[in-house]
Order: sequence, then structure tokens, then C-alpha cells
Amino acid sequence: MASRPVTVLAAASAPRRAARALAPLQKGLQTRAVILAAALAQASRTGLEGLSIGALADMTGMSKSGVFAHFGSREELQIAVVAEYHARFEQDVFFPALREPRGLPRLRALFERWVRQVSVELESGCIYISGAVEFDDRPGQVRDALVTMVKAWHAALQRAIELAREVGHLTPETDVQQLLFELHGLILSLHHDARFLRSSGAMERVRAGFERVLRPSITPLGAELASPAPLSTRSRRKVR
Amino acid sequence: MASRPVTVLAAASAPRRAARALAPLQKGLQTRAVILAAALAQASRTGLEGLSIGALADMTGMSKSGVFAHFGSREELQIAVVAEYHARFEQDVFFPALREPRGLPRLRALFERWVRQVSVELESGCIYISGAVEFDDRPGQVRDALVTMVKAWHAALQRAIELAREVGHLTPETDVQQLLFELHGLILSLHHDARFLRSSGAMERVRAGFERVLRPSITPLGAELASPAPLSTRSRRKVR
Repeated sequence: MASRPVTVLAAASAPRRAARALAPLQKGLQTRAVILAAALAQASRTGLEGLSIGALADMTGMSKSGVFAHFGSREELQIAVVAEYHARFEQDVFFPALREPRGLPRLRALFERWVRQVSVELESGCIYISGAVEFDDRPGQVRDALVTMVKAWHAALQRAIELAREVGHLTPETDVQQLLFELHGLILSLHHDARFLRSSGAMERVRAGFERVLRPSITPLGAELASPAPLSTRSRRKVR
Repeated sequence: MASRPVTVLAAASAPRRAARALAPLQKGLQTRAVILAAALAQASRTGLEGLSIGALADMTGMSKSGVFAHFGSREELQIAVVAEYHARFEQDVFFPALREPRGLPRLRALFERWVRQVSVELESGCIYISGAVEFDDRPGQVRDALVTMVKAWHAALQRAIELAREVGHLTPETDVQQLLFELHGLILSLHHDARFLRSSGAMERVRAGFERVLRPSITPLGAELASPAPLSTRSRRKVR
């Protein structure tokens, strides 16, 4: 780029014109983002079925028709909320864990961030978990969107378990689907006990559960990573 | 009783009079039971929050005020549905398992009947699981009723695990609360995968999970029960 300053300067007015032309679109996108953030907050408390265009109009200081202009229907709004939740979940849970090395460190980071996500959501509620119960017998686009997102997350976890097997941290006999099923169960149990029963100790139990579930599948190489080596300390420090 | 036939005969007309006096009460109880059965069916599909006095009136061929005469409020109806669900759960899951000998056979029977209960409910939904999500952040009597019933069931499972430890089928080091947390997670994962994701294999995974979760805590005495001995065969036959 630095080798073509003339071209860049000559073209400088074009982006400015484009920016002016894009301004209303930008504003529209901003408004949409504001509504979506409010909708996400509302759905976290009341569930996706609790979403109301009227309440959103009040929350954002817009008219009902103003909200409708951005989301053609309540169903479209629900789907947008699911997609937004998914994007944030990826941002907070999935992508940061990818920085950890393949194998147990990454799998641990994924699980630990998932646990933290649920614990952050104890006051609001997880849209994946509540949505699964709300829509488990309501066929339609919202259910399809939810299933797609949850399956994407399951696929990411599955890949992390497979990688841990490939790099030799887990034994070749490791049943990936079984491990995934059990790890997901721990998270659901955490959500249930901490949020519904308000019982103490669920955070300790979900972490102990992770170690217990993995233990029979961990190889000697994998076990080294679990001992207080630099890597393990690093990923453990992220827990708090 | 057989030694006092005269007294019994002399008193025979009293029960008949009492029966006549009780007849309206009996009829009232029957009507209440009919409404409750319809309400339970409705709540299993739509959740406790989906209960509607109007829809129940239609389903039972009664007037709205007729339904209201038996349940003073929608909240009272919801609580009655929770109690009815609990009574049936005890009848189908808890009491039959008590016939099994203390220790692993009884714990296995409790878990297996729980699994079957969830699998029967795959078409309708479990009121405990959906109720926990519906009411986790809605304080009130319905939530209190749900929490009380779920805790009663947890206490029953806890007792079964403790007994298994006492009779020497599980090691003295067995962490009862941890085991309960993990077993409950398996059930929640089954409900999620089979009902929401409609994924196959969840029934096999929940059973494999049970064995995996228990394995590290099973004593040699407990392991004998897991081998194809008459007792184990019997409890396994109940699985299908």
C-alpha cells in the first residue's frame, strides 16, 4: 500500500462519497443493533417466547412500527436474537479457547469458558438451555435456528475432543460422542442446580466432574499436562 | 376384625349413610381429578405457564367457573399439577425401585426408571425439567412447589447412593453429592439430545454414562453385582 500513495490519494474522495451514501444504512444498522441488544437482554430473562415488540419499543424509546421496520415479524426477531446470542457465545467462549494449544489445553479452555458463561448467566439465563426447553416441541424456523446453533457448538466441542485424541492426550479408544454427551450433562446440571435450586457447590462439582469424566481417557502424555506444569497453570489461572 | 362380627354387622348401616353423605364430595373429587389429568397433559406439552383455565374448560366440557370452583386461581392449579406430577413420578419411578435390594441394585433401578420416564416423556416433556427453566427466575409459590418436589427426588437419590456406600457396594470415599450431580446431568443431557436435538443414541449414552460415572466408586463387592449374576440379569431385564 505504501508503494502506491498516488493511487490512494486519488481515490480518497471515493470512500468519502461512499461513506456519505452509506450513512443512512450505518444508522439503520446501529438502530438494529440497539434493538437486538435490548431483545437479547429481554429474552435472557423471559425466554424467547417472552419477547414482545411492544416492550422492546418501550425499552428503546422507539415506536412499535419503528421496531417492526427492522424485524418484519416476531419470529424474525427471535431468530435474530438466537444468531446474536450465538455470535457472542463464539466471541466469549469459542474463539479465545482456540488460542490454547490443540488437545487437552484447548478442550479444558473451552469447557472452562463454557462454565464461566453459564455462571455469568445465572442471573439472566442461557438462551440455548431455555430455548431448548421452550422450542423442543414447537417446530418452525426459531427451533431450526436454535438447533443449528447448538449443533454448531457441539461440533466445535467434538472437534476439540477429536484433536485431543489425535495429538495423543486422550486414548485412541475415547468415545467422542459419549464424552460430549457427559460434558454437556455437567453444564446442564450446573445450570439447573445453581440457577433453579440455588444450591451452593455446583461450580466446584462441574469442574470436578470434568476431571472425573476425562480421567479414564487421559493418556500419560495428557496426564503430564494436568500436573502443575506451566501450561496447566496458565489455563488454570484463567479459571478465576 | 373377624372376632367381632356382630359389631361389624351392627355398624354396617353407618358406612352406607356416610357414603351417601360423602357422595357429593366424592363426585367433586372425581371432577377435580379429571381437570387435573387434563391440566397435567396440557402442562406437559405447553409448560406450566401455558396452562389456561379456558382451554381446560374446553377439554373437560366444563364452564370456566366450573374449573375455577375446583382451583381458586391459575397459580393454585399450577401447584396442583406439580403435586400431581410428583405423585405419579413417585408411583412410576421411586416406589417400584424400592422393591430392589439396598445398594447398587436399587440405585440402578432408580436411574433406569428415571431414564424410562424421560424416554416416555420425550413426546410430552418433563414438567420438572421444563418447570425448572420456566420458573428459575420467577419467585413465588409455583417455583417453591417445584423446588420442593425436585429436592425430594434428589434426597431420595442421595439416600440410595448413601445406602449403596453403607452396604459396601460403593467405596467409603464416594462423594455422594458429586455422584448425584453427575447422574442428574446425564438425565438432563438425555432430555436435551433426544427431545430437542432428536439425536439418536442418547438412550445408549445415558446408560453407558451411568456405568462410567459409577465405575471409579464401585467396590469388588459392588462389581460382583454388575457381572451377569441373577440379580443383575433381573434388573437388566427391566430396562427394555
